[in-house]
Amino acid sequence: MRNILIIGAGRSATSLIRYLLNRSEAENLFITIGDISEAAAKRFTKDHRNTQGIQLDVFNEAQRKEAVKNSDLVISMLPARYHFEVAKDCIEYGKHMVTASYISKEMKSLDKEAKEKGLVLMNEIGLDPGIDHMSAMQVIDRVRAKGGKMLLFESFCGGLIAPESDNNLWNYKFTWNPRNVVLAGQGGAAEFIQEGKFKYIPYHRLFRRTEFINIEGFGKFEVLANRNSLQYQSVYGLDNILTLYRGTIRRVGFSKAWNMFVQLGMTDDTYVIPDSENLSYREFINLFLAYSPTDTVELKLRYALKIDQDDLMWEKLEELDIFSKEKTIGIKDATPAMALQKILEDKWTLDPEDKDMIVMYHKFGYELNGEKHQIDSHMALIGEDQTYTAMAKTVGLPVAIAALKILNGEIATPGVQLPIAKEVYEPILNELKEHGIIFREEEVNYLGYNPENLHLG
Amino acid sequence: MRNILIIGAGRSATSLIRYLLNRSEAENLFITIGDISEAAAKRFTKDHRNTQGIQLDVFNEAQRKEAVKNSDLVISMLPARYHFEVAKDCIEYGKHMVTASYISKEMKSLDKEAKEKGLVLMNEIGLDPGIDHMSAMQVIDRVRAKGGKMLLFESFCGGLIAPESDNNLWNYKFTWNPRNVVLAGQGGAAEFIQEGKFKYIPYHRLFRRTEFINIEGFGKFEVLANRNSLQYQSVYGLDNILTLYRGTIRRVGFSKAWNMFVQLGMTDDTYVIPDSENLSYREFINLFLAYSPTDTVELKLRYALKIDQDDLMWEKLEELDIFSKEKTIGIKDATPAMALQKILEDKWTLDPEDKDMIVMYHKFGYELNGEKHQIDSHMALIGEDQTYTAMAKTVGLPVAIAALKILNGEIATPGVQLPIAKEVYEPILNELKEHGIIFREEEVNYLGYNPENLHLG
Repeated sequence: MRNILIIGAGRSATSLIRYLLNRSEAENLFITIGDISEAAAKRFTKDHRNTQGIQLDVFNEAQRKEAVKNSDLVISMLPARYHFEVAKDCIEYGKHMVTASYISKEMKSLDKEAKEKGLVLMNEIGLDPGIDHMSAMQVIDRVRAKGGKMLLFESFCGGLIAPESDNNLWNYKFTWNPRNVVLAGQGGAAEFIQEGKFKYIPYHRLFRRTEFINIEGFGKFEVLANRNSLQYQSVYGLDNILTLYRGTIRRVGFSKAWNMFVQLGMTDDTYVIPDSENLSYREFINLFLAYSPTDTVELKLRYALKIDQDDLMWEKLEELDIFSKEKTIGIKDATPAMALQKILEDKWTLDPEDKDMIVMYHKFGYELNGEKHQIDSHMALIGEDQTYTAMAKTVGLPVAIAALKILNGEIATPGVQLPIAKEVYEPILNELKEHGIIFREEEVNYLGYNPENLHLG
Repeated sequence: MRNILIIGAGRSATSLIRYLLNRSEAENLFITIGDISEAAAKRFTKDHRNTQGIQLDVFNEAQRKEAVKNSDLVISMLPARYHFEVAKDCIEYGKHMVTASYISKEMKSLDKEAKEKGLVLMNEIGLDPGIDHMSAMQVIDRVRAKGGKMLLFESFCGGLIAPESDNNLWNYKFTWNPRNVVLAGQGGAAEFIQEGKFKYIPYHRLFRRTEFINIEGFGKFEVLANRNSLQYQSVYGLDNILTLYRGTIRRVGFSKAWNMFVQLGMTDDTYVIPDSENLSYREFINLFLAYSPTDTVELKLRYALKIDQDDLMWEKLEELDIFSKEKTIGIKDATPAMALQKILEDKWTLDPEDKDMIVMYHKFGYELNGEKHQIDSHMALIGEDQTYTAMAKTVGLPVAIAALKILNGEIATPGVQLPIAKEVYEPILNELKEHGIIFREEEVNYLGYNPENLHLG
């Protein structure tokens, strides 16, 4: 028996656990699921022999070390900040480790020891980061193998509501951590490169500088820039590329409407509102509007944002009940962002039958034998239900597949890794296809942003 | 002889030094001016007997302690972060101290020791903070003495260019630290109270939520909210006031034009621009505009900000040469804010004959015997020249007057103080009048923001 320890049995662990349990007999696996909540840990273990659920507190050193020591490989599905303690134990006891999180500085610092001990510490192998790395590097390596030179790489990803469950004016529901959605884009200007020029977008303009994409069978989407598009420039070997842009996918119109909250200051998470608990939604909105003894909150908001009364944006606001005098924020010491999240959760929480959807879209521009080419590649996946969501599948399955391949010695390069090597991405992307995670490619005209490619009218 | 040590002989110390030197014979003062630059320290000492200029490095502990020990009172005109070391020496050797800076937490921590030793550590006694405290508390105390109840307090201040030197479209030049002007308003939402309602303005809306004031003989100005209007609410005894608002004064139209820089992200100080040194002004502007192979930077900017070509805002931009291909930023590792400051300094630096102007404006609303009243009070001062500027006078003279009154035992309450007590503000405001720093009051109709006071059309 090979022992796998999974730490963290939250929403993103469901598909991961199912994948490994389904293979436990054939692959001789014993799977221990540890969670701070014993009930959560035992949720998926009852119908299976080769598994156990245990209460596990990662801050309990003795308990954590014992669990790591008894395993052959550890998967941490905890929030990224908790990985390091586990990773140190893995080094100490000589265990492989897999996470879906960005490589932190602390994690990186274990690279040398991991290599010395022949251990694989595989990270960034979820959806984003994860499937984005793998599906991008597969095409980039293929272009290079042909002798092509990369000119443009754009990469977009979004967690959305499935078309069949899309029944509000925003075409959006919370399919993942709502707080991250409310705070998205904050913390500094978005930075990217277009045609060799650095470009910066401040937070308060981010939601007005979108571009469109079309996905066959799913229609039109919009993309807004991520904060740091240049993060993987060197890792992907794209140091001299002309255009490098990463973004977040939403349905068309979401960003323009979301911008209303940004403009008014409702996404601010840096200060606490006095008596937030007892504030009505209407009073909350009024915090951000000029005082007037004679004008309504409605008119002041329309004036501040210059919205016509028959604008769809207005209906989007009304749909959220933000002018309600009865509904209250109900959170003590709430920041504006926390209060806004509460208002949105009233309306954007998934109904029991709702399904989520993951969309990823890449553009690869390159030059080969003096000619310019472009490949567009996309993946769209709809969740099964609210347990086996598209998010849980796309995050958990690459983790699970990688874990098994590491155990079986098929992925063996030691050190603190991310999945950009062919030995890693090729078999994993192949296996993901069996689970409906399929990238569809098409050759399109290379447009770039160059004058000779534009049809001027 | 009484020995006064002045540390820091910069631009804000000129009027302070002149005031004390002029009284050195009559008042038996010996004035030691210490500065990191000996030349700066000696600039004002050569024609006077009772003074010396010395090289003084506040980080040289022995030198600093020696200088403090030999004085009866220390004035620190250094940046606020350097006061604490000096203040500890003052406590150790039993010396009074005066600064024009906000009371830091460290400074506050010396309160008990200062009281035990009978020492006055007077702070916030420049212009803003300083004259604002004194001129406000004088009226507030008078209202209270009559039995009135404060309803509204608004307080505005601005450092501007004198009308006779006002010759650019922005009606603005740098009369003080340019960096502070570029960064003004950043770091969190502006917070204030109107008619009992909390109000918040995010940075990116700050320059579009202005209000107007009129000053007889000087015309119309605009006011934009300071970040924290509530800072002195308790200190001034205004805990239950309906309206509390502090702001910065500019000439009308400045904020609307400045907002262009804010919107584009050019005031950001949180990241460094690659190769900033060699960037032309035009290339700098283009960092914040979408890429286009066919459109000019000019048209892209007009489109991004929705400015008509015949809008005065456009001429304001052109006046700054921001579209120049020849002029370069010339600063290594510049942030956008640093680059913008460079562009503005080209045009907004004072000419040798230019004079500055300080404007302060207060509104006091109160209720007395069931009737509502309002007093508006303002002060406007034009500088003599570029040595004895309005800024140097309004910052330095209250410091100098307070120092002499402390030495003479007229201001005697020990501890870490700010000038809100009648024993302090009354004599100082009286003496400031002799120097042209005069508040003019008028009774106006109380408007507040109440419906019964508004004439609805």
